[in-house]
Amino acid sequence: MVTDDARPGRRSFNFSAGPSALPTDILARVQRELLDWRGTGMGILEMSHRDAGGPVQEAMARAEASLRRLLAITDDYAVLFVHGGAHGQFAALPLNLAAPDQPLGYVDTGFWSRRARDEGARFAPTAIVASAENGGARLPAASGWTVPRGAAYVHLCANETIQGLEYLSDPDPTGDVPLVADFTSTLLSRPIDVARYGALYASSGKNLGPAGFAVVVVKRSLIARGARPQTPSILDWSKLAEPAPIASLYSTPATFAIYVSSLVLEDLEARGGLVAAERRSSERAARVYARIDASSGFYTNAVHPPHRSRMNVPFRIRGGDSALEARFVREAEALGLHQLFGHPRFGGLRASLYHGVPDAAVDALDAFLVDFGRRTG
Amino acid sequence: MVTDDARPGRRSFNFSAGPSALPTDILARVQRELLDWRGTGMGILEMSHRDAGGPVQEAMARAEASLRRLLAITDDYAVLFVHGGAHGQFAALPLNLAAPDQPLGYVDTGFWSRRARDEGARFAPTAIVASAENGGARLPAASGWTVPRGAAYVHLCANETIQGLEYLSDPDPTGDVPLVADFTSTLLSRPIDVARYGALYASSGKNLGPAGFAVVVVKRSLIARGARPQTPSILDWSKLAEPAPIASLYSTPATFAIYVSSLVLEDLEARGGLVAAERRSSERAARVYARIDASSGFYTNAVHPPHRSRMNVPFRIRGGDSALEARFVREAEALGLHQLFGHPRFGGLRASLYHGVPDAAVDALDAFLVDFGRRTG
Repeated sequence: MVTDDARPGRRSFNFSAGPSALPTDILARVQRELLDWRGTGMGILEMSHRDAGGPVQEAMARAEASLRRLLAITDDYAVLFVHGGAHGQFAALPLNLAAPDQPLGYVDTGFWSRRARDEGARFAPTAIVASAENGGARLPAASGWTVPRGAAYVHLCANETIQGLEYLSDPDPTGDVPLVADFTSTLLSRPIDVARYGALYASSGKNLGPAGFAVVVVKRSLIARGARPQTPSILDWSKLAEPAPIASLYSTPATFAIYVSSLVLEDLEARGGLVAAERRSSERAARVYARIDASSGFYTNAVHPPHRSRMNVPFRIRGGDSALEARFVREAEALGLHQLFGHPRFGGLRASLYHGVPDAAVDALDAFLVDFGRRTG
Repeated sequence: MVTDDARPGRRSFNFSAGPSALPTDILARVQRELLDWRGTGMGILEMSHRDAGGPVQEAMARAEASLRRLLAITDDYAVLFVHGGAHGQFAALPLNLAAPDQPLGYVDTGFWSRRARDEGARFAPTAIVASAENGGARLPAASGWTVPRGAAYVHLCANETIQGLEYLSDPDPTGDVPLVADFTSTLLSRPIDVARYGALYASSGKNLGPAGFAVVVVKRSLIARGARPQTPSILDWSKLAEPAPIASLYSTPATFAIYVSSLVLEDLEARGGLVAAERRSSERAARVYARIDASSGFYTNAVHPPHRSRMNVPFRIRGGDSALEARFVREAEALGLHQLFGHPRFGGLRASLYHGVPDAAVDALDAFLVDFGRRTG
């Protein structure tokens, strides 16, 4: 059934910013189970989420349990699997947490912070609490945040995939105003002090597994009063939190993507959880940044080192030589190093180092950075 | 890599109402390509939708082109791949098509009609245009519809999966008021006269392929004015219709499910398109209903025969003997006939005969209906 092409040995190194690489051994298991999950003669792709206690509900329960263990999520937080990715949650935040005239605070550290704010502004007045400094190269100090009086929440993006700016620890509490955060591109790369957040959310397609859903972790007390009346039900956290018989079954969930995610989550636990994941992320990113910094300006990344993203390393060649950057991408692909292009709207280069990227890929990237610099620098 | 368990010969017969069975040969292809799509060393699950002209965008373009050919969709209609399933579209309909005080008309033929109306009622006043007759066993004649003056649209559910009531042809036009329809559970089972509809939509997870997205086919003139200001962007058809570089790329789409769907759609074309699909659906459903009707009341289905669903055959045993129905499900499963239970909220039995259900499954179901009736009837 499986051709030679599909054997793990032929796998490329995939630095996609998302949907991103998945661990080969997990994909191989998904492949084995695709037409026949545990001897049922059916695949998870073909199974009803309405089968009480059946395979889909089991996968959802396992994903939730594993996520709760990994992040030490207490029972006073609901864990929801929702439709619509992070973009859906950009709207869900004000609809679930804010009255129509209640101000929303946003920390602006880059493209995704602004996307979240632009969407929030459709539903309530917004204010910038703080902005990235040094031309977007440095996170603003939390001590300088200006939180609007009576704000429903303060929002931040835990990792800016385009600018490559990341919160590597959790900011101090914001007093009575709940802190909410978009963890899309960094969830599962380090332990999180969940208690500091009223809500955090992450689209899949990065460390969580394949694209198609988002996870919301929200303090139950914040959703007890319910969403605004004109909230589409698929974005209504209180509706999705109802156990029927388990949460997130208001409509058909993204069953297959959640099943794959359950395997990824359990694999992370088996590999030592998020302390080990953070060590690995930290070491791998440090290697790539060290190579950039040692290149005497051939490769550049201007982000303040303590705020550099471990998940996405954006860089330029000779400060923005797009012809040379295109050649870099071409030559890398010829060697099996894929998707190193930057976001199409911003150009440049970007190496994303998500959980599914093997260490061997980082070795290969490091060697290629040296070789390409030597030949063209 | 693939164990013996996964060979097509061991496939069960799967009558799930959704997510439903997928054609074995398509799943086998997905399986082969899962770790290595066309020699790239990466699977579609791991690829960026931002790679211009790359595999994900190609799969989306192919799915759209194939759907346009199958349904003869003209250029004055947009085809969108959206998040949030049909439930998301229940809210998207008023948000995109109606002013806040503009009435919405709903034809009420069962559970899903009412779900659509309940969600629509969050955003505008609604009115029942007509209701199923004879205790839900017969579609109302279109000549008796009462359309509210100035209505934004009249909505119908083309197939009620729980009641088993289906529009087997397209209703007459509703004058100036656009007709919109939920085709979730019957799209691709027959040709549709798309020009009769202002918009039609369908969640995946049935004939379209795996769960995780919905398709919207909407007349461009209806979305030219844009959605209401407080429309979450993921539900805003005009935003999703913007080509950037192709439609449906406002946020990360459900890439893998759309790729599988593109294979299903092209397979349907290769098998003779929707004329052939309708012949097959019609013949298969007729066999099962004939067996029910010939059982002298042991099996019952009360739906008016010209309105019986070809996709979902709900039936009871001895008018509702739940112990015998549970035994039916158990014995069927022991023979490899799966997911014949009715919707958990309504009980009874249900055989769904979607595109991915092989003819051999219908043969096996027919034989089991006879055998079970003989032994217990």
